[in-house]
Amino acid sequence: MFYYDGKLQYQVRVDTPDPRFARALQQAIGGVEGEIRVMMQYLFQAFGARGPKKYRDMLLSTGTEEIGHIEMLATAVAMNLEGAPSSLQESVAGANPLVEAVMGGGDPRQYLSAGMAALAADANGVPFSGSHVYASGNLAADMYANVTAEATGRALACRLFELTDDPGMKDMLRFLIARDTMHQQQWLAVIEELGGHQGTLPIPNSFPVEQELRDVSYDYFFTGVEGTQPPMGRFTEGPSLDGLGEFRIRAVQPMGQEPKLAPPLPEAYAEQQQMTQPVIENTTLT
Amino acid sequence: MFYYDGKLQYQVRVDTPDPRFARALQQAIGGVEGEIRVMMQYLFQAFGARGPKKYRDMLLSTGTEEIGHIEMLATAVAMNLEGAPSSLQESVAGANPLVEAVMGGGDPRQYLSAGMAALAADANGVPFSGSHVYASGNLAADMYANVTAEATGRALACRLFELTDDPGMKDMLRFLIARDTMHQQQWLAVIEELGGHQGTLPIPNSFPVEQELRDVSYDYFFTGVEGTQPPMGRFTEGPSLDGLGEFRIRAVQPMGQEPKLAPPLPEAYAEQQQMTQPVIENTTLT
Amino acid sequence: MFYYDGKLQYQVRVDTPDPRFARALQQAIGGVEGEIRVMMQYLFQAFGARGPKKYRDMLLSTGTEEIGHIEMLATAVAMNLEGAPSSLQESVAGANPLVEAVMGGGDPRQYLSAGMAALAADANGVPFSGSHVYASGNLAADMYANVTAEATGRALACRLFELTDDPGMKDMLRFLIARDTMHQQQWLAVIEELGGHQGTLPIPNSFPVEQELRDVSYDYFFTGVEGTQPPMGRFTEGPSLDGLGEFRIRAVQPMGQEPKLAPPLPEAYAEQQQMTQPVIENTTLT
Amino acid sequence: MFYYDGKLQYQVRVDTPDPRFARALQQAIGGVEGEIRVMMQYLFQAFGARGPKKYRDMLLSTGTEEIGHIEMLATAVAMNLEGAPSSLQESVAGANPLVEAVMGGGDPRQYLSAGMAALAADANGVPFSGSHVYASGNLAADMYANVTAEATGRALACRLFELTDDPGMKDMLRFLIARDTMHQQQWLAVIEELGGHQGTLPIPNSFPVEQELRDVSYDYFFTGVEGTQPPMGRFTEGPSLDGLGEFRIRAVQPMGQEPKLAPPLPEAYAEQQQMTQPVIENTTLT
Amino acid sequence: MFYYDGKLQYQVRVDTPDPRFARALQQAIGGVEGEIRVMMQYLFQAFGARGPKKYRDMLLSTGTEEIGHIEMLATAVAMNLEGAPSSLQESVAGANPLVEAVMGGGDPRQYLSAGMAALAADANGVPFSGSHVYASGNLAADMYANVTAEATGRALACRLFELTDDPGMKDMLRFLIARDTMHQQQWLAVIEELGGHQGTLPIPNSFPVEQELRDVSYDYFFTGVEGTQPPMGRFTEGPSLDGLGEFRIRAVQPMGQEPKLAPPLPEAYAEQQQMTQPVIENTTLT
Amino acid sequence: MFYYDGKLQYQVRVDTPDPRFARALQQAIGGVEGEIRVMMQYLFQAFGARGPKKYRDMLLSTGTEEIGHIEMLATAVAMNLEGAPSSLQESVAGANPLVEAVMGGGDPRQYLSAGMAALAADANGVPFSGSHVYASGNLAADMYANVTAEATGRALACRLFELTDDPGMKDMLRFLIARDTMHQQQWLAVIEELGGHQGTLPIPNSFPVEQELRDVSYDYFFTGVEGTQPPMGRFTEGPSLDGLGEFRIRAVQPMGQEPKLAPPLPEAYAEQQQMTQPVIENTTLT
Repeated sequence: MFYYDGKLQYQVRVDTPDPRFARALQQAIGGVEGEIRVMMQYLFQAFGARGPKKYRDMLLSTGTEEIGHIEMLATAVAMNLEGAPSSLQESVAGANPLVEAVMGGGDPRQYLSAGMAALAADANGVPFSGSHVYASGNLAADMYANVTAEATGRALACRLFELTDDPGMKDMLRFLIARDTMHQQQWLAVIEELGGHQGTLPIPNSFPVEQELRDVSYDYFFTGVEGTQPPMGRFTEGPSLDGLGEFRIRAVQPMGQEPKLAPPLPEAYAEQQQMTQPVIENTTLT
Repeated sequence: MFYYDGKLQYQVRVDTPDPRFARALQQAIGGVEGEIRVMMQYLFQAFGARGPKKYRDMLLSTGTEEIGHIEMLATAVAMNLEGAPSSLQESVAGANPLVEAVMGGGDPRQYLSAGMAALAADANGVPFSGSHVYASGNLAADMYANVTAEATGRALACRLFELTDDPGMKDMLRFLIARDTMHQQQWLAVIEELGGHQGTLPIPNSFPVEQELRDVSYDYFFTGVEGTQPPMGRFTEGPSLDGLGEFRIRAVQPMGQEPKLAPPLPEAYAEQQQMTQPVIENTTLT
Repeated sequence: MFYYDGKLQYQVRVDTPDPRFARALQQAIGGVEGEIRVMMQYLFQAFGARGPKKYRDMLLSTGTEEIGHIEMLATAVAMNLEGAPSSLQESVAGANPLVEAVMGGGDPRQYLSAGMAALAADANGVPFSGSHVYASGNLAADMYANVTAEATGRALACRLFELTDDPGMKDMLRFLIARDTMHQQQWLAVIEELGGHQGTLPIPNSFPVEQELRDVSYDYFFTGVEGTQPPMGRFTEGPSLDGLGEFRIRAVQPMGQEPKLAPPLPEAYAEQQQMTQPVIENTTLT
Repeated sequence: MFYYDGKLQYQVRVDTPDPRFARALQQAIGGVEGEIRVMMQYLFQAFGARGPKKYRDMLLSTGTEEIGHIEMLATAVAMNLEGAPSSLQESVAGANPLVEAVMGGGDPRQYLSAGMAALAADANGVPFSGSHVYASGNLAADMYANVTAEATGRALACRLFELTDDPGMKDMLRFLIARDTMHQQQWLAVIEELGGHQGTLPIPNSFPVEQELRDVSYDYFFTGVEGTQPPMGRFTEGPSLDGLGEFRIRAVQPMGQEPKLAPPLPEAYAEQQQMTQPVIENTTLT
Repeated sequence: MFYYDGKLQYQVRVDTPDPRFARALQQAIGGVEGEIRVMMQYLFQAFGARGPKKYRDMLLSTGTEEIGHIEMLATAVAMNLEGAPSSLQESVAGANPLVEAVMGGGDPRQYLSAGMAALAADANGVPFSGSHVYASGNLAADMYANVTAEATGRALACRLFELTDDPGMKDMLRFLIARDTMHQQQWLAVIEELGGHQGTLPIPNSFPVEQELRDVSYDYFFTGVEGTQPPMGRFTEGPSLDGLGEFRIRAVQPMGQEPKLAPPLPEAYAEQQQMTQPVIENTTLT
Repeated sequence: MFYYDGKLQYQVRVDTPDPRFARALQQAIGGVEGEIRVMMQYLFQAFGARGPKKYRDMLLSTGTEEIGHIEMLATAVAMNLEGAPSSLQESVAGANPLVEAVMGGGDPRQYLSAGMAALAADANGVPFSGSHVYASGNLAADMYANVTAEATGRALACRLFELTDDPGMKDMLRFLIARDTMHQQQWLAVIEELGGHQGTLPIPNSFPVEQELRDVSYDYFFTGVEGTQPPMGRFTEGPSLDGLGEFRIRAVQPMGQEPKLAPPLPEAYAEQQQMTQPVIENTTLT
């Protein structure tokens, strides 16, 4: 179970409130790169963890940390919606300049729906979706999902850093950017513990590799039409990263048939012509 | 631009149609681990690619391959909906046994909405969402997103492999599992080309690290209450993976304040009591 | 404004309740082919109607009819959840056979969330989405959207007709199928009033056609690779339906460049290598 | 079934069209606090109503009223998109000033998708979702859901009132605000009819209370860590509102175990290390 | 910030695993009546709380309690997916009986996507949506939203109680049902503290009532057509609950005009006929 | 399977980048009228095609063309995000003028999430949903769905044409508008091939018409209250379009009963009063 202390994990200050920045911060709260996602992703991975206990605990600990990040960002949104920057005080409709500012570049729902506070949504007002909570039951797959979340999350935080001159906001972001640095490494460290590429690949490493069609397991399929050049790199030659094969490049050709589905089932109510028209073969283009 | 040849990339055979398996296959088409997602993810990463040309081409080539995987799986769904397994021929409502089978464990919309064909949705009928198309503009972040997609995708294909005894379906899945093996390595090979952990971390590696709060960049924050034990591992001691610091463990304490937001804005129409009631401090629990 | 009389537009009887059919009926309520969609689509088209008054009135009248169809179907769902078919009375968990039946093939949320009633969702429990309310402001486009809704809606009703032996349910569906017959024709009759193909095409017919690239306005683009045969038909030769051109078939070739985007903006925080690596051209595949 | 008369329930006038206000109005149409939601919520509650007939009729009557509110608001949106305020006539792209205005602070889809009319979406363009149609089958639960909808709906209408100086729009909102006043009371009056708190609590009041774990039924659980102070109030001492117990405050401690899930099922394809690694207990943090 | 201790708030035992019940439990995790929703709703209300400090703390405390409820339910799902009930061991595809059971009535994604664990989704696999996190900034509106959540949540828990014979599961539900009892009262107790109906209505009580159209503030609008009878009750006569008026009943008539929108803007590309056809008035139906 | 050549189907040039236009272009990529939708719709119709082979091929060919349209539009978005128009160079937060421009009227996620590139979303940032992929298995229904997509798509492209003065962008749109012209006709030409209205109506034409309630198959139902006038037109008199009946107009009256649902099931946990209160009939309004 969980506990709170009512204090912020790191100080949140806003020197010059900016409703437009309050909108941008929503991406870090409810966006696909945001903190609700990592909080729920790490907690669900912990709740369903099977295998070594330490990974459950690690996920639980970091998931709990992330709840506090949502708290910091939601507080930052609310504080950016207090008092209006003087540059925005020309009113269109005679309203409060702050309300004006929210409507003119901010997220209108921070005012209309939340009365000047944060939403569980992204910078475009799209609500957070639980479909982004990746918890596959496979530890390596989950660690890469977590690295992805922290890599896109840190890119987002760096971009937010560019959008503000406010010293308080920049300070808060310095903290969050540093935590994302740690978290990227934390999940990759688990991959190292599991033996790195050779210990984990192919994911899942518990499926018997002889069951897969080994003939195409290390082939880079090039799908360019005749006349185009394939890209070459570490992925087109040399030993595979799992140490079990050699990369090759192959201009791929169809290995399968042209599909011919059965006629429509009467109960499926296609048009009659679909059931009765003779199949007319295509003709040659001249 | 793009071209087609009307043939399948690999042969799709169904010996014993199974509407329940047709439902499960939807996860590989429109699920978060499925082929629509990787097709669109690789193509959008290619369309927005900035930097070395070869990565654009690689993404374009593999994205194009994935369109063909959707084609294979959609064909497999349609073929699993042709003819009913004899074990399912006891009818509830006098209907066609195949229709019965779809309604009793299959996806009803494969019949009701598609007339016995595949949908752009997952195994629960939840439509594919473009929010899962990760294309961050940062090459390393995108590569990890792609590894995640192929790792969860291969886990899914292996699980589907367990759900069928049909030789044709198992053969198709052997092909798809092998392709996922390759694709996992392909994206990790790009990370190697970029210099591995030290060449890419922290992602994005173009943000000046001195701007982040270095004091917490390599700290594992332990959020357990007093009396709990922290997990230990590669992520709690030793050099950080980016070669720039040392991992530490820290029982984290609040570094921030207790938030006190300004009173409600009159225009936000809170209850009067929120604007006028004196702040009553909490009392001590005895 | 609107009024009700509390009676059903057409009689709804259920002789033998069937929770599984109650689930299927959800598609006709909240599915993309369902009645919530047409109700809202026709009403929103009416509310935003500009131009001849009679079309606003027609849309308002038929939109109002559709509210009553939702009422009929929701009533049918509730009645299918009253009393359990004897064939389903073997209980797994000792519970009420009806509850059992809902959990074993029905929509669990009809019990869990609605206490044995209908939801604003489809047969897979996916909630209705307002994104399916097409009201483009262009009368011809909207009429085709409405034909689509009634064509897929009638196909759905016919398929539901196959799923039940209940005389009451079949009778209700006979009514709804007939109404869909009328509504398909009603919207197409508007196209006729507007002058048919020549009076409406291309939609919108108010954009000056000389502004479009007439060279490709009647070309069927064939994107098959070399060796494939194009399909031929009414769309590859003969006069165009709008009477303004001749159909042609063309094996399409790129008319555009290979895109070369600018390097990443520093503020966008790509990886450094994207900003600094020399562009390596692809090599020839041998 | 339902009827229309083509007139508005209350007059809608717009003296000075304002595309930005047209965007804000979308929240009252398709937002979670909006009229599509209450219309569908009341109608679905009516369609599934079991028990005293008068509540079905009441819900049907008010649900029908709400259709007319959507009509009013959609008309208001369309009228706010007619003619451009002179202050917005400086054009960026040489276009119509009205189009400019919609693109610069309005909802672009009101122009792009609807040709200057309303959408079934909220102020951020997020489509209405049927998941917000609460109809639980429990009358008291539904009445509170309806109070919530009308309370947030009236707050929204009051906030919209602040966003406009237009006399026509203010007049329309005065009507809608008054209707929300009535509707809040209407649903609470049903609670009174059912006997107030003691007649309805706990909801559902048909579950035998002795089956619940009475020891925690009136305890305020305080989850603050040591050193924090609990909030005190009507909910921490005195008789419970249902008259069946006494409120208490309790610093909650775990009453349950540390979860230990079974090892992964082989068919679930975790990583091998999850299945084989010895469980390493956490160590003490020093 | 937040802390964890790794133990469950209340004991979770499963004597006889049941994958179908694991599916039903999803509704209590990720459904609109579920624990993710209340957790996030209370925390977001706390994070944005303006006014008396004790309500922020109360919300924070209970929101933190709810995280532990998700933990309990997710654990219960995972445990219901361990070992198969013997009655389900007849295999269709030769697979593990447990996997069979999940595919035949369970949530296929608990196996396919999560490897036998819980998802952030409802009983139909629809992902949790942040749009259900109601935090309006108005304390009374939020309290009613919370009562709604706990009333529908307790109804859901009672219905789940009917779906299982498992003593462990019934015991867990007894605890959760009791907590919902408390939480319903807790939020209503705040309404009492604020002065009950007269202290809080109409919500928001800070909008000057003289600004609303008082003539319709206490009128029950009856929208039945001629010949229908209105429902009567506490809401049609007697003093209003806020003490400011008298309820009345009124057969409502249109107070507004028939809307006539301006012709289409040329830039909106309607059909030409919408711009040029004379308005033909409707004729009398005979 | 599919192939690419890396070149654009038609040239994409941007003379004066405009982030606001980059936002509007998103509607043509991920909106309901956009290219992802038609690409997936045509491909899914092809993948599930049953009946004459030429329609499968036609759909495959045009679906493949549409992938290239997404490529063009995504390239256009990226190019509109390169370099800032001088008129936007006054910075709010000292940031790059281009970043400023994206935040002030553009889609913030094109910067925050994609690093200056396109998203799989619409002009309001709402992600593409697979629910819009209509593939009903009925050829005529699908053709009308395709006409709708191309009609709303061409209206969208014409409206985008109004939003830009950029010669390159206008040139690209001229191409896309022309392709939409062709595609509208292409799908209608299939209807012609199938015999026009008489050959295809009612859709599906394989359901035995004598099974429907012919008495209402050609009746225009007028739902206006007494005193309103019905709209008259091609749909109220004359032969029906399918040649099988005569249009009529009918002021519709209820043909069904007032629904009376059974009392609540005890297991559904309604309020006790719903199960026990006598049914009180409504009284006459005076």
